[in-house]
Amino acid sequence: MKIHEDAFKIIEESINRVKPDEAVKAALSGRDFKGKVVLIAIGKASWNMAEAAYEMLKEKVTGGVVITKYDHSRGPIGDLEIFEAGHPIVDENSIKGTKRVLDMTSALGKEDQVVFLVSGGGSALFEMPMDGVLLEDIMDITDQLLKSGADIVEINTVRKHLSKVKGGKFAQHCENTSIFSVVLSDVIGDPLDAIASGPAYRDSSTSEEAMEILERYQLSVEPHILEVLKIETPKDLKNCETVITGSVTALCSAAMEVSESLGYTSYLLSSTVDGEAREVGRFFSAMAREIRNGNSSFKTPCAIIAGGETVVKIRGNGKGGRNQELALSCAQGIEGLEDTVFFSVGSDGTDGPTDAAGGIIDGDTAKKLREKDIPLEVYLDNNDSYHGLDSVGALVKTGPTGTNVNDFMVLLVNER
Amino acid sequence: MKIHEDAFKIIEESINRVKPDEAVKAALSGRDFKGKVVLIAIGKASWNMAEAAYEMLKEKVTGGVVITKYDHSRGPIGDLEIFEAGHPIVDENSIKGTKRVLDMTSALGKEDQVVFLVSGGGSALFEMPMDGVLLEDIMDITDQLLKSGADIVEINTVRKHLSKVKGGKFAQHCENTSIFSVVLSDVIGDPLDAIASGPAYRDSSTSEEAMEILERYQLSVEPHILEVLKIETPKDLKNCETVITGSVTALCSAAMEVSESLGYTSYLLSSTVDGEAREVGRFFSAMAREIRNGNSSFKTPCAIIAGGETVVKIRGNGKGGRNQELALSCAQGIEGLEDTVFFSVGSDGTDGPTDAAGGIIDGDTAKKLREKDIPLEVYLDNNDSYHGLDSVGALVKTGPTGTNVNDFMVLLVNER
Repeated sequence: MKIHEDAFKIIEESINRVKPDEAVKAALSGRDFKGKVVLIAIGKASWNMAEAAYEMLKEKVTGGVVITKYDHSRGPIGDLEIFEAGHPIVDENSIKGTKRVLDMTSALGKEDQVVFLVSGGGSALFEMPMDGVLLEDIMDITDQLLKSGADIVEINTVRKHLSKVKGGKFAQHCENTSIFSVVLSDVIGDPLDAIASGPAYRDSSTSEEAMEILERYQLSVEPHILEVLKIETPKDLKNCETVITGSVTALCSAAMEVSESLGYTSYLLSSTVDGEAREVGRFFSAMAREIRNGNSSFKTPCAIIAGGETVVKIRGNGKGGRNQELALSCAQGIEGLEDTVFFSVGSDGTDGPTDAAGGIIDGDTAKKLREKDIPLEVYLDNNDSYHGLDSVGALVKTGPTGTNVNDFMVLLVNER
Repeated sequence: MKIHEDAFKIIEESINRVKPDEAVKAALSGRDFKGKVVLIAIGKASWNMAEAAYEMLKEKVTGGVVITKYDHSRGPIGDLEIFEAGHPIVDENSIKGTKRVLDMTSALGKEDQVVFLVSGGGSALFEMPMDGVLLEDIMDITDQLLKSGADIVEINTVRKHLSKVKGGKFAQHCENTSIFSVVLSDVIGDPLDAIASGPAYRDSSTSEEAMEILERYQLSVEPHILEVLKIETPKDLKNCETVITGSVTALCSAAMEVSESLGYTSYLLSSTVDGEAREVGRFFSAMAREIRNGNSSFKTPCAIIAGGETVVKIRGNGKGGRNQELALSCAQGIEGLEDTVFFSVGSDGTDGPTDAAGGIIDGDTAKKLREKDIPLEVYLDNNDSYHGLDSVGALVKTGPTGTNVNDFMVLLVNER
């Protein structure tokens, strides 16, 4: 059916547009860097981002460093120095790579340009302790904070103050040079000081907060660590420009554009959807019913689009993921609606511990499941969306996509 | 602030438009009934509906019967016969009133007109067992079904087949006459064969289903009851016309119109929202954030409208209602947004076991609660939305409104 084909086109094309290489090309396209360019890429997607940037800037690049996760390099890129390092735990290779970055950028001047490619995972891959602090100190404090029940924001606040590159301090290090950052965002709401711990973005956490956190969890640290914590992270950086790309916002925009090109009037509701997966599916089904009965403000043919990252409260012991559960729940609410298709898909191609990216359902899905003798509710109750959707051919499988910008969900309703 | 005033105007004016009297006037306005009119009104809102109809049709009304709940009559209406009867349990007065209706309508002819005003509660107030069946039989079977775990749809299927007026059989009784029904809907999706058990609407349940239900729950009934169950409910009624009014759909339409008149571009998302109250609030907050950041398809000033009936999973032991909890949850998600107001309100004016109709919140609500030393999360975790909202003046109190067409929720976002 055409509407299913359209849905698959939207999935494929939207994800393609937020892949690291495409995202970097879009961000760099039309930019003219005057002097020589040093290319620094950190994070899990850094190899792909660096390759794309190198291809565009080739003759201008005088050198650079790529730090990615083990097994994530796919070979040499020009004369860039490529490091593979520890993730999610910092290791000696993270430090080695970071040292090369600091060395290479320490003597740059006004006429130079750092192109800084940032993706998720950068916190572990790009790290150098402040002078007088050991990597072991940072690991020990992190460990103590974790055991005391500190949350990730608190832990990062402390770590930024112990690091020589996090919390805007990398930009401070190259303060005589311009830094153009291209950030592939995997954090909802795109908080630039949180993605990869914000090496080239003004920090919103303070030295005072870091001290309070140690006090709150009654951590004992040595005096020299306390001295370092007192050094404030930069609150104002004049040498930085940042472009967010390949974020969930970009994913949603892509879905809008592709849907429009296929003839659907498209509406973006939100790119920061959180909440319980099945409840989000339920809300989408309530909108679908209204579109079908003709009272909705959305007129057919239309595409209702949202992005974000939902959660699943595990009650059963089935197999599934948040996108699959969201789709299955929506199938319950749209049973019987014609020419109505909905999908929820994770942009990384991996939804939960499964080989599916998400689910795609329509008004017949619930009936088909009942005819197979296991009603939808049973799968839903057992958090077994994978097997439920699989039994009626409603899984979306893209394979690993090489990008990770959260999830998106699209409701398509056609004219009757 | 103007946006708050606007919100209160939308609440008041929208509910006014779906009050039983206004709803009846709107439904009857412009209609010209040729012959004499018999006015029959059943349900909890029947007195108000009958009074409004009587005022409009006065000289044409040759007689009529009103059956309402005890203490719901507010005095005589012309020469209509007014009965007060049992609800939610049928009693002898329900039967007495229903007998008068059947007597009064049995001799009507083609030139006559029954104006039939239906509201919630009509199932108990309008009842007459089939010949050979006793009211006690029906009560006994209902009781057995309840104890066996049968759901309300199953129970109603059986009861419709044991009743002389339910499931379209009242319309069958006056088959020589036209019946014009005005239905005040309190059931989401307006299923006309379910509201008051559909006395003048073709029935979707079958005799076969009724038998299967008895079998499923292994009920032993006497042979003469089985004989009665074999008689099919009408599947086709040519003498009936039905107007649904004062439904949640009408409530949402009113909210659209009032919002538009106040200058907000208005969008109706759904009139069948169900799901967990706090999750619906969360989805609204995700939409609000996107409107504020400018990426949403909804441009300011706008009103995002939905209706329905959510549920609350009780975890704490606080005081609240589904609308108050929904609003409180939304306040969490829109913290810090300016010129953004959201309300969720029950049209009957009573949300849960409280004297509030719902809650109205804005981007400052969460902060105000924190400044009062009890953060929003504490109220939410304890299902204590009433006290949370009350402490910052965020309750909506309308008093009982005399109507009951579910809940509505509106997000207003103004230009900055």
